Amino acid sequence: MGRGAQRRPPLRTVGELRVRYGDTDAMGVVYYANYLRYFEAARVEYLRRLGQDYRAIEASGIIMVVTQTACRYHLSARFDDLLTLGCRVTGMRRSSFRFEYDLRRAADDARIATGWTEHACLARETLRPVRLPAELARAIDAFEQGG
Amino acid sequence: MGRGAQRRPPLRTVGELRVRYGDTDAMGVVYYANYLRYFEAARVEYLRRLGQDYRAIEASGIIMVVTQTACRYHLSARFDDLLTLGCRVTGMRRSSFRFEYDLRRAADDARIATGWTEHACLARETLRPVRLPAELARAIDAFEQGG
Amino acid sequence: MGRGAQRRPPLRTVGELRVRYGDTDAMGVVYYANYLRYFEAARVEYLRRLGQDYRAIEASGIIMVVTQTACRYHLSARFDDLLTLGCRVTGMRRSSFRFEYDLRRAADDARIATGWTEHACLARETLRPVRLPAELARAIDAFEQGG
Amino acid sequence: MGRGAQRRPPLRTVGELRVRYGDTDAMGVVYYANYLRYFEAARVEYLRRLGQDYRAIEASGIIMVVTQTACRYHLSARFDDLLTLGCRVTGMRRSSFRFEYDLRRAADDARIATGWTEHACLARETLRPVRLPAELARAIDAFEQGG
Repeated sequence: MGRGAQRRPPLRTVGELRVRYGDTDAMGVVYYANYLRYFEAARVEYLRRLGQDYRAIEASGIIMVVTQTACRYHLSARFDDLLTLGCRVTGMRRSSFRFEYDLRRAADDARIATGWTEHACLARETLRPVRLPAELARAIDAFEQGG
Repeated sequence: MGRGAQRRPPLRTVGELRVRYGDTDAMGVVYYANYLRYFEAARVEYLRRLGQDYRAIEASGIIMVVTQTACRYHLSARFDDLLTLGCRVTGMRRSSFRFEYDLRRAADDARIATGWTEHACLARETLRPVRLPAELARAIDAFEQGG
Repeated sequence: MGRGAQRRPPLRTVGELRVRYGDTDAMGVVYYANYLRYFEAARVEYLRRLGQDYRAIEASGIIMVVTQTACRYHLSARFDDLLTLGCRVTGMRRSSFRFEYDLRRAADDARIATGWTEHACLARETLRPVRLPAELARAIDAFEQGG
Repeated sequence: MGRGAQRRPPLRTVGELRVRYGDTDAMGVVYYANYLRYFEAARVEYLRRLGQDYRAIEASGIIMVVTQTACRYHLSARFDDLLTLGCRVTGMRRSSFRFEYDLRRAADDARIATGWTEHACLARETLRPVRLPAELARAIDAFEQGG
């Protein structure tokens, strides 16, 4: 937790979601793969906060594929729990960047799951890496520094 | 449907699948929507038996969209149950047809879920109805009458 | 469709949901089984409007299992579409009842999918049919007639 | 990657699975969260090879919860691809262990996704850590060394 860590932008709450019955499994808690679906909800809401629309990015011919992910499970979420979606972007490079996530139970702010996804920007047609759209990079920078 | 109904082909077993943990919900049984995923597995295996490949059909520019579905739940399937996939095609018309399904527990042949899906053949580009591919219609006829 | 049908309560909007990327399939639209997940979201929100909590019902030892369902697909929903969840209860009997659904695209009120689920109330332990909890039945009646 | 790494058991193929249409997303490839569902299929098949039955373990009052996971996406799997499930257990400790996975396209052995899950053994009632069942630990040891 040196100086570098202190400069990382805080994770900001970008939205909420409700755990559905279909997200749970026979243990009575959310199935482990479904947290990655919640991460997706978080990053889409993050982009919306920026005034960016993932659909518009795709329509412009650029796709942002997930190249790696990791998730740590702290406490189990249950059916009908309301979760807050914490999110930030770190590690922006020429054609890749990372989202970090922090999912909490809204009722008591208990940490449920944390994790990250690494994304590469590719041209939809050629699947070759392309530069992060300039407007998106600027919007992320402004958002993260405005924290 | 009169006498025709008596001539409906039997549901034939076209494959098997294993219930995954992620398919269950907090009641300890398969979540109700997931039987529609199993129906999909059944119809893909049915087509494979016919020597038809759904991917090839799509590649030819035709999509088979589901326009209606219904499902009746008889007994709950549980994690790790092996299910047999019964399937047949009925009601072929110019640009639509119906799959019927019968999912059973392999261990004791107990009926788990039955249902059907109604499909329309559309041109991928225009989304206009198109005639069922002739080769597919012939293959289905031969398969159902060869029962 | 006699007079009885005319007295059916209208479908009321009980909530909204956003289509996630993970809900879509390779056709670029919501996978057909996922509409049943949306139906679940609708009925949970319906119960919340009534001041009923599905978790509390389950905690009291009663489960409401789906015995049948049907869905008709009108227009495809796409990633990031906002859908409105229309819902009502019809056909209340001693230990069963039916939810009806009408999912629409919020942007233009276009009908996306309609359907219903039939539910049986069972004792969690014995899986025997039990009477619909009186408070729930009263709350539904009041809500539907207050439309 | 010293001598220790050389002693890690190889990943053995424990089964196969077919990519379903419902596993894909609007990019035309398997949705990233669904590889975690495939990992689950791999570990269940791994245990079956050992003569262990995850259902029986749960019935004995022990649950194996996932505490962490990571996944690296190499190549996209597509609808109807047949995947081989490679799996091994590493890092067995008193009450935790790790599964590692290697999913490949059966047609050409191309690497699709690799990853791992970390599991803790808990008593179902108390959710306290418990020792890995001795028979399971022995079976894993024998299987991994018998490679």
